[in-house]
Amino acid sequence: MNVTVLGKTRHYRTVAFDARKNAVRLIDQRLLPHEFRIVAARDFQETARAIHEMIVRGAGAIGATAAYGLAQGIRAFRGRHLEKLSFHVDSVYQTLQAARPTAVDPVNAMNEVRSRMRQGKTVAEQQALALIAAEEFANDDVRQCEAIGRQGGPLIQEGMRILTHCNAGWLAFVDVGTATAPLYAAQAKGRKFHVFCDETRPRSQGATLTAWELAQQGIAHEVIADNAAGFLIQRGEIDLVIVGSDRTLGRTGEVTNKVGTYTKAVLAGRHSIPFYVAIPLSTFDWKLSSGRDIPIEERDESEVLGAWGVVARPRFQGAGPGLGRRVFVRVANPSSGARNPGFDVTPGELITGIITPAGIFKPKELWANRCKLGYRE
Amino acid sequence: MNVTVLGKTRHYRTVAFDARKNAVRLIDQRLLPHEFRIVAARDFQETARAIHEMIVRGAGAIGATAAYGLAQGIRAFRGRHLEKLSFHVDSVYQTLQAARPTAVDPVNAMNEVRSRMRQGKTVAEQQALALIAAEEFANDDVRQCEAIGRQGGPLIQEGMRILTHCNAGWLAFVDVGTATAPLYAAQAKGRKFHVFCDETRPRSQGATLTAWELAQQGIAHEVIADNAAGFLIQRGEIDLVIVGSDRTLGRTGEVTNKVGTYTKAVLAGRHSIPFYVAIPLSTFDWKLSSGRDIPIEERDESEVLGAWGVVARPRFQGAGPGLGRRVFVRVANPSSGARNPGFDVTPGELITGIITPAGIFKPKELWANRCKLGYRE
Repeated sequence: MNVTVLGKTRHYRTVAFDARKNAVRLIDQRLLPHEFRIVAARDFQETARAIHEMIVRGAGAIGATAAYGLAQGIRAFRGRHLEKLSFHVDSVYQTLQAARPTAVDPVNAMNEVRSRMRQGKTVAEQQALALIAAEEFANDDVRQCEAIGRQGGPLIQEGMRILTHCNAGWLAFVDVGTATAPLYAAQAKGRKFHVFCDETRPRSQGATLTAWELAQQGIAHEVIADNAAGFLIQRGEIDLVIVGSDRTLGRTGEVTNKVGTYTKAVLAGRHSIPFYVAIPLSTFDWKLSSGRDIPIEERDESEVLGAWGVVARPRFQGAGPGLGRRVFVRVANPSSGARNPGFDVTPGELITGIITPAGIFKPKELWANRCKLGYRE
Repeated sequence: MNVTVLGKTRHYRTVAFDARKNAVRLIDQRLLPHEFRIVAARDFQETARAIHEMIVRGAGAIGATAAYGLAQGIRAFRGRHLEKLSFHVDSVYQTLQAARPTAVDPVNAMNEVRSRMRQGKTVAEQQALALIAAEEFANDDVRQCEAIGRQGGPLIQEGMRILTHCNAGWLAFVDVGTATAPLYAAQAKGRKFHVFCDETRPRSQGATLTAWELAQQGIAHEVIADNAAGFLIQRGEIDLVIVGSDRTLGRTGEVTNKVGTYTKAVLAGRHSIPFYVAIPLSTFDWKLSSGRDIPIEERDESEVLGAWGVVARPRFQGAGPGLGRRVFVRVANPSSGARNPGFDVTPGELITGIITPAGIFKPKELWANRCKLGYRE
């Protein structure tokens, strides 16, 4: 999407590849929203480190980064023997996988790159095919998000007030995003609407990333504390809720997403407000038959006990607004611990529709439409 | 309650009066949980400032502080004429009221002190009666909280996992607190249980004040992000919810409390978990006949857009754990604004019981029991 830095507007993808320098170019998401910086990972080890250190995060974005990282590693191979290249590929693959061991997207992305490259008959051919496969993986991510926008855009009507949770925006993908895609599509049609971004504690992706995205695209929005969503819904100040998902069960329509999503779905259900989930096809899990079998990551307690932010500095010290030092502050009582589940599971009965690139489906209709939705036996 | 500082345990009230020095002694709640400090307000202007600057906060605590502040101002009067004292009292009253103009507790508390003092026939008698009235106001606050503990204590059974929101603990009153009173009563009976403290963004009173209180009393607890309450309730990891209230409508049973309370009540209702509200009699509003008529304060957006905390310092710099510099950090996107409603209203149908000093009542039973609950026509 477009980003304006110092008055200049340019189009960026979250992840891109510089073929000349054999480098993966990433928006450093750790610095957002206080600073916009592109970093170049110059070899596959640096790319793996960028995934590990969360310079890049979000399902689609880390998938594409791993795909590019694998191609990058393959392209750096010096030799003529396909057998030696094959050993090298395994080592690059493992390094990139180990960077975020529980994520499924890098694995799927790299499997695709690897199987495509094997159609080449020489080292040079395989190297070329690997990059083509990675580019196509990234482009397909963008195409799917654009299709979600076409499907979901008509839901966003003039004057609507929309609640979203966490960040399923373009920063989490290669471009456009999922939960944000219908918003950007509606904006392109000239519609005006207002978005409430749930702060999304403990990591505050709503207040930081989603708010930054919407501000960059000039979409009217306000941040709210997660606690305030219930108040706004109760007062009739929300017309529609839209979120993303990290894993959606194709058999049951249950949706795993950032912790707090279930709470918003329960509130929306009580007040008969439409609750939509926007997802690319890669998010479907066609195997599990119960949300109870989804493992929920318990994250480090420090996230709950404090917050990352920027210390306001007087302007005369030379720093512009929002360009102070980024620090972690301890908020909670020093001797207290915390529980920190990262995700929750929302049952299909609370979901009005699942917006996919292939159409909008009720959770119960997913299984019947599985072929359209990319299911393979 | 007891506070342990540098290994020494002592009993403190949130608000106390030093008659010899004619000073109001307060726990500086702005420094908690990172520092425990008692400040002395040496004249009524300093007491008013302490209320205004939120050194002291919480309905019962500011009521008692205003009562003491009025007595303090009256005792500082030098003169013999009752008429001149009366003018002076009006001025002290107005100064203290202006410190937190929307709060009702200081007004009720000061009205009681003023009407009691007027029974005196000399300046000296009125001065003595004012202090007696203020002391009785504070003691009555403690007695009511203790009675809430006796009424609600039996609800807290061995092994229970309890969710609470915001701080309705002893720091918000003179001692003991309301939502915490049943916990302290159950602990005194030797029962073991576990409390989850909702962080309570944007001001984080759960993570700071409630967690500090529970740690000081040795009650097992963990802080959770407000988003995680739904996850824990859904997984069956919460047995009971208990909160306080800023205003409870005696005619309808609707409860105004810190924003986010409604959300927790909806979640508890969906999963058939008991949801209790603990309140002193002063919290009842017997006039309004609909929760929609309760004005909801919209607070400054900066609270949502950032957080107060302590920057962790290396120990060798001489600061103990949690004793770094307290700073405000900007978390959200610098160009985004926020909505910040301070409270929400929970309908009686979602409330299992209202724990009062006079017994536990269903919301619908309040009006029928109004005489017992302090209603005056």
